[in-house]
Amino acid sequence: MIITLRAGAPPETVASLAQGLDAAEVPFRDVTLAGSRYLVTSASWQGAPDLFRACAAAIEAVRPFATEYQLCTRAFQPANTVIDLGDGVVFGGTATILMAGPCAIESEDQVMRAAEHLVRTWGIKVFRAGAFKPRTSPYAFQGAELQGLKLLDKVRRTFGVKIITEVKDETHLDVVAEYADIVQVGTKSMYHFTLLAACGRLRKPVLLKRSFMATLKELLQAADFIMAGGNPQVILCERGIRTFEPTTRFSLDVGSAALLREISHLPLVLDPSHAVGIASLVPPVAQSAAALGVDGLLVEVHPNPAQARCDRDQALSFAQFDALVPRLRAICGAVDRTLI
Amino acid sequence: MIITLRAGAPPETVASLAQGLDAAEVPFRDVTLAGSRYLVTSASWQGAPDLFRACAAAIEAVRPFATEYQLCTRAFQPANTVIDLGDGVVFGGTATILMAGPCAIESEDQVMRAAEHLVRTWGIKVFRAGAFKPRTSPYAFQGAELQGLKLLDKVRRTFGVKIITEVKDETHLDVVAEYADIVQVGTKSMYHFTLLAACGRLRKPVLLKRSFMATLKELLQAADFIMAGGNPQVILCERGIRTFEPTTRFSLDVGSAALLREISHLPLVLDPSHAVGIASLVPPVAQSAAALGVDGLLVEVHPNPAQARCDRDQALSFAQFDALVPRLRAICGAVDRTLI
Amino acid sequence: MIITLRAGAPPETVASLAQGLDAAEVPFRDVTLAGSRYLVTSASWQGAPDLFRACAAAIEAVRPFATEYQLCTRAFQPANTVIDLGDGVVFGGTATILMAGPCAIESEDQVMRAAEHLVRTWGIKVFRAGAFKPRTSPYAFQGAELQGLKLLDKVRRTFGVKIITEVKDETHLDVVAEYADIVQVGTKSMYHFTLLAACGRLRKPVLLKRSFMATLKELLQAADFIMAGGNPQVILCERGIRTFEPTTRFSLDVGSAALLREISHLPLVLDPSHAVGIASLVPPVAQSAAALGVDGLLVEVHPNPAQARCDRDQALSFAQFDALVPRLRAICGAVDRTLI
Amino acid sequence: MIITLRAGAPPETVASLAQGLDAAEVPFRDVTLAGSRYLVTSASWQGAPDLFRACAAAIEAVRPFATEYQLCTRAFQPANTVIDLGDGVVFGGTATILMAGPCAIESEDQVMRAAEHLVRTWGIKVFRAGAFKPRTSPYAFQGAELQGLKLLDKVRRTFGVKIITEVKDETHLDVVAEYADIVQVGTKSMYHFTLLAACGRLRKPVLLKRSFMATLKELLQAADFIMAGGNPQVILCERGIRTFEPTTRFSLDVGSAALLREISHLPLVLDPSHAVGIASLVPPVAQSAAALGVDGLLVEVHPNPAQARCDRDQALSFAQFDALVPRLRAICGAVDRTLI
Repeated sequence: MIITLRAGAPPETVASLAQGLDAAEVPFRDVTLAGSRYLVTSASWQGAPDLFRACAAAIEAVRPFATEYQLCTRAFQPANTVIDLGDGVVFGGTATILMAGPCAIESEDQVMRAAEHLVRTWGIKVFRAGAFKPRTSPYAFQGAELQGLKLLDKVRRTFGVKIITEVKDETHLDVVAEYADIVQVGTKSMYHFTLLAACGRLRKPVLLKRSFMATLKELLQAADFIMAGGNPQVILCERGIRTFEPTTRFSLDVGSAALLREISHLPLVLDPSHAVGIASLVPPVAQSAAALGVDGLLVEVHPNPAQARCDRDQALSFAQFDALVPRLRAICGAVDRTLI
Repeated sequence: MIITLRAGAPPETVASLAQGLDAAEVPFRDVTLAGSRYLVTSASWQGAPDLFRACAAAIEAVRPFATEYQLCTRAFQPANTVIDLGDGVVFGGTATILMAGPCAIESEDQVMRAAEHLVRTWGIKVFRAGAFKPRTSPYAFQGAELQGLKLLDKVRRTFGVKIITEVKDETHLDVVAEYADIVQVGTKSMYHFTLLAACGRLRKPVLLKRSFMATLKELLQAADFIMAGGNPQVILCERGIRTFEPTTRFSLDVGSAALLREISHLPLVLDPSHAVGIASLVPPVAQSAAALGVDGLLVEVHPNPAQARCDRDQALSFAQFDALVPRLRAICGAVDRTLI
Repeated sequence: MIITLRAGAPPETVASLAQGLDAAEVPFRDVTLAGSRYLVTSASWQGAPDLFRACAAAIEAVRPFATEYQLCTRAFQPANTVIDLGDGVVFGGTATILMAGPCAIESEDQVMRAAEHLVRTWGIKVFRAGAFKPRTSPYAFQGAELQGLKLLDKVRRTFGVKIITEVKDETHLDVVAEYADIVQVGTKSMYHFTLLAACGRLRKPVLLKRSFMATLKELLQAADFIMAGGNPQVILCERGIRTFEPTTRFSLDVGSAALLREISHLPLVLDPSHAVGIASLVPPVAQSAAALGVDGLLVEVHPNPAQARCDRDQALSFAQFDALVPRLRAICGAVDRTLI
Repeated sequence: MIITLRAGAPPETVASLAQGLDAAEVPFRDVTLAGSRYLVTSASWQGAPDLFRACAAAIEAVRPFATEYQLCTRAFQPANTVIDLGDGVVFGGTATILMAGPCAIESEDQVMRAAEHLVRTWGIKVFRAGAFKPRTSPYAFQGAELQGLKLLDKVRRTFGVKIITEVKDETHLDVVAEYADIVQVGTKSMYHFTLLAACGRLRKPVLLKRSFMATLKELLQAADFIMAGGNPQVILCERGIRTFEPTTRFSLDVGSAALLREISHLPLVLDPSHAVGIASLVPPVAQSAAALGVDGLLVEVHPNPAQARCDRDQALSFAQFDALVPRLRAICGAVDRTLI
């Protein structure tokens, strides 16, 4: 249930309303989003007519919801959320933003070579690379951390691109947010609610990857977690789910992606690289992703895939990437979108 | 392991070879495919040099295989299998064949109206509809059976289309094969080995749907089952796998589809309708499927979806289908294929 | 919906009722089960008061159902179905029947040695072994077929045991039913509806294995398929489901097994051997299965597991089996059951 | 690979060894565990004979590993890890510790009533209840937090029980560790590597729940994450995995649990309550869990399940719990263990 408060509602009436909810042991969130203020409760609460009548002076509207996610739905906001990073990078319109780069920042030479190729050859406007890597093995390379962020800054200044990079936990969120144009919450962090809450306090776009084990409901609840903190700039990302099939790393869930666009007003990005995990299969899967008509694609490209320190099996070489882009461009055109 | 026999191999040497395998308790299949004859054993058998030396007069080549499927692989046959049904309907080339029609044959009016729209408006060349329906509920409509096949025959004669329809078990395989241009083995029958063996004796193309619970390995073994019976005309079909996500019916496994094209020389068709199971989501998922660059698509269309007796939630209306086809055509063009 | 017909209902009224259903295009099954006659329709049909009033002379009761499975539920029959094979082998009471033997019949020596050990040492009353094997690979041993059934007959006559063996399709159902005390429908055949219908015409107990990717709903619908044919002697079997975990073959779904006992009056058997697929893990998993309090266990035992021609990784040696039985007996005692 | 350093190894040789690994870009962890010191690298590294020769003075042994997890395996330590909390609460021996209590701390009355019943009637020695709840919905009750921990302290002082309670992220790890005898890392936090690393610095037992979609490999890597920080007191917990079956909440993976005991020396606990998620099914599933022969069980019990603010569908009433305990005791006896 979403209770929209009136602009200029008497503070004491709002306080009475909040006390009434507390007295009824109804958990709620006091949300200010895009200039409006809401009290949001769980979908299962039926409301209390007496309370609403008593506090009518503070209430503009009461909307019941059938689902456990609310702020991210088209029932709450019918029109697309538009996130404009400038320089033509607009999520939520008719562009499909191609975001590319290596999995992890390994060295200055590596990121600069990758960025140079991607920008000079294809005009890539958003560069991706990870500095804080959530690795399953404690004995694997955990990322270049702050030093990596500084290299990303050099990429940004040199090539004029936007940066998307991952945050692993809330302890380094501020420093990541300082260097990133888009902060990425990775698949293994989607259930990390303290981090989601911290992202709600940011005033930067957050790309929220679906956990490979999350239902759509859980992904959308995670989006609500961020939005309930006051940050409306959430970009959803489907990056493959875990199934019984052992030969590919994950399975890109195109049906769920299509459903997300029906349900939610938030931009949607797909990540074919992590979804399939095998470089030779990334191009056809990326084509599939583009044909859905989405707001962006995340593709891993490495100057020398065989030497990559992270996810080397799925990184495209420059040659593979160069063969893919024209196809993606043509597919985007076929579904009335523009690849940027 | 595949032992290719020489043309004109001395029958008694072949018999010795077979006896040698029997004596070693090595199960094998004696396969004649496209004019050549092979003895095929499981991948795990290492071969017996003495036996091969003794029977050298009958043996042209011996190929070990690392996988449990063999005949369907590019290691056995590098070039695409091409299945030409005439009238431009060629699987295995550069065409993407759009096969459409209702899930089940319900009445003459229903199939004739569907066929008329599909053929007159879009020039559809392959019409799909089921007469023998493998329904999970014993209390559901089980299909129009022989009467349905006769209606399909009328569709064929009236509109000059090819027919693809499903076989449920081997008892009615002959009658289905009489009326069908392509015999479909459904997702619930992929592990029905007696039926696969019977399809191996057909001289018609067989479209083999992946079980929604089958690994790629098992699908390819099922293809080998049919081919080992002497029928090289197998078309693979990915139609969605079962995952943990409850909101869509199945998940189209685009990564596995891409991998199938690398591994196998057999044509590949995708079925977005069954994969997602929700009509409004079929168009984007069909777009994703087309963008992979496959040999065909199976799409369910019904003159009046709300009245469909089977799978009504996933059937496209004529209006939905009409909006989809031009997009599919454009996407096929973008990946250097022609939608037919 | 289940319409119970009166004993001695006027045939012409029954015919009117059936015509009324046909006219309304409501699929139904005319079921005679344990001496009573029913017309059963899908759960979604709401009934037609006029038709029921007009045919009241033939109708004893009308029961709506909320689920798509009906005959197998406790809502249809609250008390356990009891299947008594004689000699103390009773499913549906307080016994847990230990059914053991090799996966496949390989030779007379093998089955006789297995049976001798199991019967002489442990008094096993039901011997399991397969003659018709639904193998995923066309190049694997497909079973000893009729010759195997004859060996089972020798086991039965020599040791006085009951026989459970698998049927692969309806073409050899009669011969299997002739040799078997319990006919097994395997996990890969659960969606083979023609076979299920044929099993409905049997007058023998049928052990129905859950497909490794069937929902409980689908398993129970398959049970209804058999019962709707007139055979009430169905035994359900949970044998492991396919999950994302690659190290064990399948995962025994103990929660679903517990739920089956709540929902259904049919006996329930568990198969720890196929569920886990690794011999050293079969004993603990069998212990888990026994502790649920079920009607039976299926355990694979082989005189020489390393030489088994089928599923060799999961077969227990005699020594492993001998260590397991006393534990199973004690566990059954702890949950107020008797291991037989 | 695990390089065991000699006691009293020359620091400069150790430094040379570490420099050699750095120079080769081999990530490694410097681990001190139970008084010994190790350098641990990923399983895929093959070692460098020259480096090892040059640093031989510092190296006691070099062990290659075939798996990506190392410290938690029986290959590293054959004997069970024993964790003794005093008062007979010993994990890793022949006891099965029954840990019970409500899902969340709601009020003083609630936890005190629960503890009183569990301790007075059954002598429960470990009480479970959550103060920091990782809830999927932002609009749900998020736990009593510090106030809840203080109530747990009162339970401990009043009833003399041990406390197990969950930590949600590293920001409140210290305060949880102050109040808990066992710190629980929940299923949604298993991939939260910063938290795992922080748990590695604790000197308290950590119960690590398997993520509901983690492979065993990933669970064991997470255990290594904690151990690599220097904390050998890790207890593994299987609590149900996500599968395609929608009727039960998760599926207790008993086969994987059995395999964990083969692979790992760490104690193993099962959580039947979260695994099945339906109160009436918790007793049979708990029986199954006990029959595996594990080190502990986690069972949710609530004085008034209908009023529970969290996971109410799965909480046992006192009456249900009272009926279960004697059965668990008998089953433990049947597998040569003692329920405590």
